Amino acid sequence: MQNAQAAALGSRNAVSARLAEFAADMRWQDLPTAVQREAVRSFLNWTGCAVGGARSASAEAALRGLTAMSGTGTTPLLGRAERLQPADAALFNCLASAADTFDDTHLSTITHPTGPVAAAVLALADTRRISGRTLLLALAIGIEIECRISAVITAPGSGASQGWYITGVSGGIGAAAAAARLLGASRTELVAALGLAAAQASGVRATHGSMSVAFVPGIAARNGVAAAHFAAAGFACSEAVIEGRNGLLPVLAPQAEPEAILHGLGGRYEMLGNAYKPYPCGIVIHPSIDACLALAGRCPAPEAIAAVELAVHADALALCWRKLPVTPPEAQVSLYHWAAAALLRGAAGLEEGDASAIADPRIRALQERMQAQVDPALASGQARVEIRLKDGTILRHAITEATGSLERPMSDVQLAGKFRALARLRLGEVQVETLLQACLQLPDSADAGVIGRLGALA
Amino acid sequence: MQNAQAAALGSRNAVSARLAEFAADMRWQDLPTAVQREAVRSFLNWTGCAVGGARSASAEAALRGLTAMSGTGTTPLLGRAERLQPADAALFNCLASAADTFDDTHLSTITHPTGPVAAAVLALADTRRISGRTLLLALAIGIEIECRISAVITAPGSGASQGWYITGVSGGIGAAAAAARLLGASRTELVAALGLAAAQASGVRATHGSMSVAFVPGIAARNGVAAAHFAAAGFACSEAVIEGRNGLLPVLAPQAEPEAILHGLGGRYEMLGNAYKPYPCGIVIHPSIDACLALAGRCPAPEAIAAVELAVHADALALCWRKLPVTPPEAQVSLYHWAAAALLRGAAGLEEGDASAIADPRIRALQERMQAQVDPALASGQARVEIRLKDGTILRHAITEATGSLERPMSDVQLAGKFRALARLRLGEVQVETLLQACLQLPDSADAGVIGRLGALA
Repeated sequence: MQNAQAAALGSRNAVSARLAEFAADMRWQDLPTAVQREAVRSFLNWTGCAVGGARSASAEAALRGLTAMSGTGTTPLLGRAERLQPADAALFNCLASAADTFDDTHLSTITHPTGPVAAAVLALADTRRISGRTLLLALAIGIEIECRISAVITAPGSGASQGWYITGVSGGIGAAAAAARLLGASRTELVAALGLAAAQASGVRATHGSMSVAFVPGIAARNGVAAAHFAAAGFACSEAVIEGRNGLLPVLAPQAEPEAILHGLGGRYEMLGNAYKPYPCGIVIHPSIDACLALAGRCPAPEAIAAVELAVHADALALCWRKLPVTPPEAQVSLYHWAAAALLRGAAGLEEGDASAIADPRIRALQERMQAQVDPALASGQARVEIRLKDGTILRHAITEATGSLERPMSDVQLAGKFRALARLRLGEVQVETLLQACLQLPDSADAGVIGRLGALA
Repeated sequence: MQNAQAAALGSRNAVSARLAEFAADMRWQDLPTAVQREAVRSFLNWTGCAVGGARSASAEAALRGLTAMSGTGTTPLLGRAERLQPADAALFNCLASAADTFDDTHLSTITHPTGPVAAAVLALADTRRISGRTLLLALAIGIEIECRISAVITAPGSGASQGWYITGVSGGIGAAAAAARLLGASRTELVAALGLAAAQASGVRATHGSMSVAFVPGIAARNGVAAAHFAAAGFACSEAVIEGRNGLLPVLAPQAEPEAILHGLGGRYEMLGNAYKPYPCGIVIHPSIDACLALAGRCPAPEAIAAVELAVHADALALCWRKLPVTPPEAQVSLYHWAAAALLRGAAGLEEGDASAIADPRIRALQERMQAQVDPALASGQARVEIRLKDGTILRHAITEATGSLERPMSDVQLAGKFRALARLRLGEVQVETLLQACLQLPDSADAGVIGRLGALA
């Protein structure tokens, strides 16, 4: 039986090897133009989020913790004047980019893919000369591997708990692949990097609703950097930690199909399923925000509202069930808070998620009169809102394709606008434009480390 | 339904809080004498293993990787002349202590508890004045929390896969508790440290059989140090990442009973279920080694052996099924290799696990004639061996209590002998004795950092 089981599992052992081959051999010019473009857009979006979150309460506390633990270094931090060692800088920049839950989402898996990978490669670009294309290629490779692993774990019937924080589970593996590629790892070393990252795969959704929601992606970035450095130094690893016997997938998602990670690899790109958030909160809340924003202008004073009913996809309540949040991190995952805020303020930006919005008695009162129900007929990007006024009037709006969804993606202009709004929180006007141009021109830059230097405070 | 579920889970939310209370408030003088004694013994055993493994291939590669990633520091490494930053030193010392799989085992859970916790507290003792008792108290606290979490995860019917590498999953949480205690964390900060460590809980048994088997405990040590520093710096964390909704236990072991972690806390000590390895290989192999060693003297030349049959507990084959291993890490988890080596050499020390023993054609040939079967009647510390000679003679031996088991624990003299044998691999005679005495007298030392300095090379 031992042998039969081993044989049955033997066919799985190609997964890590094939991913390593992909990571070692892929060339920039072989990426479809759409993927090249999305690599730039995802990096731009991420850089803005990292700068914007650089002085969040989470980022401040993380910087204190990292400095107490490891002291300082020379690698720049986006939006800050301090410098840390590269692995700590990767952790910090990723954590800061996730602090406002404003980054991006691989919609079919609810992975926030860019943070761990981008933070890892940017940290490496500080101490070695890496061209913009080389960095973007590594980013695309890392995101592809990350999202493919997320896809098999989150596939229906995989046996994985929805409580896994999928960005933490697969993000470090993507970061390791990207970092190992930048370190010039051989295929064997790349297999080890993937394995050592899979051995660190972690994160649960109980961390949501507090600073710890940003800790998990930050740790994934650091884990990827560590896995790549160990592998490049000749630290060996079992060959199939992702897919083999007692490997990550068999253990965490026993009915998953590891081979499915490879389907269409190099042909079809999960990167093209990545979307950029228009609102700084859980992606599953976004369709409801769209619906509430659509009615905000037509809605009279809140006192006139008798009740609000939301019809949502199951994920919206499974992940963002909180009502009457008390802290900003709790509000990030509160469907009720954002629906009420969007309806009353006609906006859903960073200000709608801050402490004063959370304490706003009008927003709180409206949450009390709000009900949310799962409608199995709704897709994840859909929602309906129905407002009953005290005078008997009914206002309804249905969203079939949320803003920022794959059907209605953020345009380049919208992304640049989001970048500017975030970067201006920490940088002066001129520096914001310089950094924006540097991100957009990254494919033609000889030195990707420029992003870290331009994005930091002097 | 949302509220009902939340209410049902509400009672679980005391687990992290109670563990934090235990970690913050426990005093050395309140520990039973037996636990105080075992804290010293576990620390002594661990220190010997760390010194002994300091130049293993895994340790060499890890040191290269850490240095390439983060440079050097000032915290000593046991058995080495190099110095690293504290968190990296914790990773390295733990990894080295696990490299020969010679450390210790909490037998009921197959956790190797001391490494992550001891390495974390020793690293902190380098840069702050911590008395020996304070360090040993933190060690006992960390091991207790670690093993209690392991116990609920590995309890029959918990729903957790046996493929989880339990030392990695719970080791960082124990390390975080110990480190946070040493950093003077408040109860609130201790809850955060536990949560941030639970958010990093990771490790699968696919890492066994290569250097990566030692990587997972090393990472757990570092994760604990990081969690404690973040928490002490005011980085907040959800209150119940271990036990709450979408928390580590509900996600990883859905049928586990988180409240069972607290049963008898402060009265009954899991630390007393910890055992020190007499042989440098998987603990589940040890009863078979005992049985083979008992027959080694009575066994004629290997050519006379027709067949060897092992009857073992199910865990022995589930975890150490490998036959004809090729590398030392593979041999560490090969029941067949160690049984054959013990039978032919009459010994089961480091030399029986090295490359030349693995290549020994006599040992390999005997593995080919060896069969192992699970006997459900056997307890985990039991095994039987039956040797059929070509002349028809049968030799049998049964082990009912393995050497190093709780029923036949390693004596203080045996532990000191093991320490000396390991420490002499890296240190001179005088330094070995000085270090041994420092470990034994740690409860009376004003400066626990002395262990790191005495155990390092100048």
